[in-house]
Amino acid sequence: MQELATLSINVGLLGLGTVGVGTAQILLDPVGRHPLIGQLRLARVGVRDLHKSRPIDIPADCLTTNLEAIVSDPQISVVVEVLGGLEPARSLILKAIAHGKHVVTANKAVVARYGDEIFTAANQAGVYVMLEAAVGGGIPIVQPLKQALGVNRIQALTGIVNGTTNYILTRMQREAGDFSSILADAQRLGYAEADPAADVDGLDAADKLAILASLAFGGRIKLADVYSEGIRQVTAADMAYAQRLGFVIKLLAIARRRSDTQPVLEELELRVHPTLVPNSHPLAAVNDVYNAILVEGEPLGQVMFFGPGAGAGPTASAVVSDLIAVAATLITEPSGAPNPLLSCSHQHYCKVSPMADIYSRFYLRLIAKDRPGVIGKLGMCFGNHGVSLESIVQTGMEEDCAEIVIVSHEVREANFQTALDDIRSFTEIQRVASVLRVL
Amino acid sequence: MQELATLSINVGLLGLGTVGVGTAQILLDPVGRHPLIGQLRLARVGVRDLHKSRPIDIPADCLTTNLEAIVSDPQISVVVEVLGGLEPARSLILKAIAHGKHVVTANKAVVARYGDEIFTAANQAGVYVMLEAAVGGGIPIVQPLKQALGVNRIQALTGIVNGTTNYILTRMQREAGDFSSILADAQRLGYAEADPAADVDGLDAADKLAILASLAFGGRIKLADVYSEGIRQVTAADMAYAQRLGFVIKLLAIARRRSDTQPVLEELELRVHPTLVPNSHPLAAVNDVYNAILVEGEPLGQVMFFGPGAGAGPTASAVVSDLIAVAATLITEPSGAPNPLLSCSHQHYCKVSPMADIYSRFYLRLIAKDRPGVIGKLGMCFGNHGVSLESIVQTGMEEDCAEIVIVSHEVREANFQTALDDIRSFTEIQRVASVLRVL
Repeated sequence: MQELATLSINVGLLGLGTVGVGTAQILLDPVGRHPLIGQLRLARVGVRDLHKSRPIDIPADCLTTNLEAIVSDPQISVVVEVLGGLEPARSLILKAIAHGKHVVTANKAVVARYGDEIFTAANQAGVYVMLEAAVGGGIPIVQPLKQALGVNRIQALTGIVNGTTNYILTRMQREAGDFSSILADAQRLGYAEADPAADVDGLDAADKLAILASLAFGGRIKLADVYSEGIRQVTAADMAYAQRLGFVIKLLAIARRRSDTQPVLEELELRVHPTLVPNSHPLAAVNDVYNAILVEGEPLGQVMFFGPGAGAGPTASAVVSDLIAVAATLITEPSGAPNPLLSCSHQHYCKVSPMADIYSRFYLRLIAKDRPGVIGKLGMCFGNHGVSLESIVQTGMEEDCAEIVIVSHEVREANFQTALDDIRSFTEIQRVASVLRVL
Repeated sequence: MQELATLSINVGLLGLGTVGVGTAQILLDPVGRHPLIGQLRLARVGVRDLHKSRPIDIPADCLTTNLEAIVSDPQISVVVEVLGGLEPARSLILKAIAHGKHVVTANKAVVARYGDEIFTAANQAGVYVMLEAAVGGGIPIVQPLKQALGVNRIQALTGIVNGTTNYILTRMQREAGDFSSILADAQRLGYAEADPAADVDGLDAADKLAILASLAFGGRIKLADVYSEGIRQVTAADMAYAQRLGFVIKLLAIARRRSDTQPVLEELELRVHPTLVPNSHPLAAVNDVYNAILVEGEPLGQVMFFGPGAGAGPTASAVVSDLIAVAATLITEPSGAPNPLLSCSHQHYCKVSPMADIYSRFYLRLIAKDRPGVIGKLGMCFGNHGVSLESIVQTGMEEDCAEIVIVSHEVREANFQTALDDIRSFTEIQRVASVLRVL
């Protein structure tokens, strides 16, 4: 057997924010880590400001503000994009590919939106685009989905993939606090952005779900096909009722096959929404900023991956794990066929069910006038629409009102919503206070 | 870029027990799984009895009782060993390697004992020995340790890696039952073997820990260096006290670096024992036959992998994931340098601390005569040996006796044991009922 070549592989780094610094720190300090890191050379680092003070010593001749020069540098084999945002990240990735560079990116927003364009270009150019860091921070999930888990027929993937919302929901649960005050506190502590929309409206989770589902089900996903609903409407009252019923509320990203009996991909459900998760479920115990992804497949059963979903160190760990995967391939076979475990070659688009056709349990909280017969009328209405109920609890409130909390069995969404439309018109119903889905 | 070769890779399967059948089922039914499975051809299957009825149709000309013929068959590229037991598994693996075959094995006992011999032979022959299925059943843990997690400096690995003992401990906790009656029931239900020693005495977990630590810390491990203590001495009383103190009792396999500040491997703690785990710890919620492995590294932080630790489907999923990893390498580079992410090339042995030198918290349950001053005497004795205490609780019992439960702070094991030797000689102490370590 040949000796492992001691070829050095030049890496160009685009961006020196927290993840960029974390990545450079690993590359510049390889002792005690995987020996392949010693063969990666941080050749050039692209930044906006050469003179900004940074918590790391980068040789001055490495730094440049000319990012275009990095992606076209013939000495560089792999470009790491940790700029974030859509542009210039997308253009730089495409230019790097056009110049025959492999790309490692942490940019979920770009991959979820422009994955088609990027992977089509990468396959034509014969380069890899690696994205372990784009989802789940330091949790190895992309590589297992491409490799170890791929021998299974994946039936479902369910994840807590946004740390900010998990932090807010965990605190709402512990403190019986309201969304807006805890969001404000999270912003003060740096757990939520000044503009929190991408997180709290579920958009970041939708980006990640599009990427994970594409890997799990082996087809391309249009981001517009992913339903997403955020956590702004979750109240302390819902948290308390959920707890009483044996649930916690989590923002889940769910991808599942419509029929588990059908081995070939038929139709997917792709949705992000706050969800009542039974206390006994493995995802129920995932708290604070942690992420976790549960994968179900045949014949494997359930496996779950848990860890830090963000942060400089974890994300940098994922970036460098992609770098060594590419390096191993370059060293063993610099000009061979693409390694089918690293490349991403699926071409077709997954068919995604409209939300009206998904199946879920539902949690419903109503404010009603406290009159005899209301419960009966609700039960009849649901029954007429084929919605069967698991539990119904009425609690007296002040001023002749009652709060009614209903949990349904699994039902087609359209049936539930049609029943709900009828219920809204009942004179006894003052208000539909919340509608949440139940795992 | 070249097209992916549609080369077919011949696989020889040694053993058609539950895992063998599970593996064959995946290989013979590739639709809806990773496309590489379609390039694996189940060429020959070695069994003891050709005419045994089996839940799978294997073409008659595939089956043979001549296992030696499989490992020397020039048509076969990869041998899957799922026989279990030490011999003939070890000899067949070595013969397969000598004939230039790559090997995929689920045999933790052989790898933990003969890993040196096997990997030395494999490196000389230029073949891979893959063992994802040897630890953690269907949980992808071996590959992440070799690749994604390897970019970190691993500080500790803590696992629940034996499903049988986790099942027994979970039931003891839920039912407040005794070890022996629940073991008997587990045997009746098929969750424990007729001879349960390998599981309940911690030997199976020690095998797995030796393998995991070798991967995590990049050195060879002598199985004799792994301390192991089983769960036979855990009582319903300990379970109840643990619960009152905010812990559950789990059989943990623990590997950790003595000093987290030292980047290069210095000295390891390697130990398997029943452990009080705080309720808030991610491993505390891992119940029944499930396994989980928590890995801590720099800069990653903590990640945990959770899933089914045994069973035909999960273990077969791991076996086939190794097969596609080898296949990908064979297809892209049939005669190149060994892929450093698949091969296992470390040569040195890890230095392992003797148990006297480990650091742990301890739980101690004593039966004492109910006399004034006992608590003070115990406190003095521990203090004299440098053992500081976290909590001490005394409960009255019948006949002038008291039960005293002590939890210490982290302390060197030798100090705790020397103090305990003194305490055994106190006239007030009737019996040391239990000594357990605390995470």
